[in-house]
Amino acid sequence: TPVAATAAVQWYVAESDIAMFPTIGDIVLNRITKAVMENAAFAVTGMATSWDKRCIRTEDHQPLIGVSSFGNLQKSVDRITKWLEARGYEVMHFHASGPGGKALENLAGQGELTGVIDLTTSELTDLLTGGVYSAGDGRLRSAGAAGIPQVVVPGAIDHTNWWVGECPERYKSREFYQYNVEILLMRTNAEEMAALGQMMAERLNDAKGPVTVMIPTQGFSQHIIRETQDIDGNAIGSWLQPETDQAFTDTMRQHLTHGRIVELDFHINDHEFADACVEELMKSLEP
Amino acid sequence: TPVAATAAVQWYVAESDIAMFPTIGDIVLNRITKAVMENAAFAVTGMATSWDKRCIRTEDHQPLIGVSSFGNLQKSVDRITKWLEARGYEVMHFHASGPGGKALENLAGQGELTGVIDLTTSELTDLLTGGVYSAGDGRLRSAGAAGIPQVVVPGAIDHTNWWVGECPERYKSREFYQYNVEILLMRTNAEEMAALGQMMAERLNDAKGPVTVMIPTQGFSQHIIRETQDIDGNAIGSWLQPETDQAFTDTMRQHLTHGRIVELDFHINDHEFADACVEELMKSLEP
Repeated sequence: TPVAATAAVQWYVAESDIAMFPTIGDIVLNRITKAVMENAAFAVTGMATSWDKRCIRTEDHQPLIGVSSFGNLQKSVDRITKWLEARGYEVMHFHASGPGGKALENLAGQGELTGVIDLTTSELTDLLTGGVYSAGDGRLRSAGAAGIPQVVVPGAIDHTNWWVGECPERYKSREFYQYNVEILLMRTNAEEMAALGQMMAERLNDAKGPVTVMIPTQGFSQHIIRETQDIDGNAIGSWLQPETDQAFTDTMRQHLTHGRIVELDFHINDHEFADACVEELMKSLEP
Repeated sequence: TPVAATAAVQWYVAESDIAMFPTIGDIVLNRITKAVMENAAFAVTGMATSWDKRCIRTEDHQPLIGVSSFGNLQKSVDRITKWLEARGYEVMHFHASGPGGKALENLAGQGELTGVIDLTTSELTDLLTGGVYSAGDGRLRSAGAAGIPQVVVPGAIDHTNWWVGECPERYKSREFYQYNVEILLMRTNAEEMAALGQMMAERLNDAKGPVTVMIPTQGFSQHIIRETQDIDGNAIGSWLQPETDQAFTDTMRQHLTHGRIVELDFHINDHEFADACVEELMKSLEP
């Protein structure tokens, strides 16, 4: 379909495993559309054959742990994954760019996950501000509703994601860092950090399973090494802003009535922090 | 890849035939990502087998005519297609939502097209205003550079396309019609019509082949049957605005130095208009 090459594909594919084949031209038969439709038909045949083979497998699966991830938290994600796999778990990473968070919520709701280390909750920042990586209002709800153990971290909530050139007018006076050719990061301010602490606490209060909020006081993302800039690219100051991030911790402490809060004097990507997240989940899984 | 489910897919797929398989989770092996990657691998195998078979076909193709299309010009597109096929041509429709126009330009530039009826040039409106269906600055250039005959119509240039809820602030006082749950149409005003006449004329002046601009004076799209509304949905007036559309014709007459202009007192979807477009192309193709 011609939709497969537009931004609209996000609404059709979302968190599903739908693959879209662009027809290039609209649906009328000619040498080009015939070729792409033949391709799609053969692909479907190939996948159906594969599915048939997979259905007769009888192997048992190890319990599956969901970990929400971002490139700038890779050190921590890798360390967590290594330990979980060493302890006999399968690990699934959910990239926190919208569809990832939705898939995490879906799979948790369907009972596919045994536990969650929700390291990268930044989709909630985008939900709050209107950023392009929101996973919708269902985020941070399903694992709690399913009663599975959760370790929750304010990972990468220190920024909103905008497409370069498309940051809304009302945010133009904020602090930024252009991450790559597509993505402009906007530093979360104290007011938003406070709103996030409350929002996340309220969602976690509804959880039916164990919850631990783990807070790395030396910084919520790898971006702390950067300088922030105004919208025109002039340097403003440091991305590392402990007083801003403290607003999250304060409102989290004020509103969380279910589970507990652990503050650790590490950066989110420190080995010690990653190890503590794994240990905390293990306590809930293997009491 | 996780990108396959985001708006960013448009930049990777664009006018190509790339199909993207969402991995749901990030790239680490588990029961879910194994299944989707197996699917993708079997799809590739299926497509490769298909390609191999197609390569040994020796059938000759009939000459291919490109027609740019939109749902609201379907009557005219269908009529044009029927006549072209009856005369022994293959027809390819390019949906004017950005990737379609880019594909049209690419295939014209590669020598795949024998002629073009560019009925739906509305991507140029989105290029001018910043709308979401722009095909970039290359639009209306390649067929001319390739020297192939062109019949060009201001089809559906009477609106810009916005995602619902994402119309820029600076346009909020304009006239609109919400086409469906995703798309908000903004009625092109006289100033923009004048700019479009000049822009299209300047591009066509560079053409190396024959050019005819066909103008349907009773309306450029099916939307003339609608009432326009303000951004809050209150009725303003009629979508049919001949004096607005006249601004296009005036600047086109003023700036076009190559080819000719034919004004016809029909609506763009009238059979008579579609038939005249086909006849005009035939004159250039079969002199």
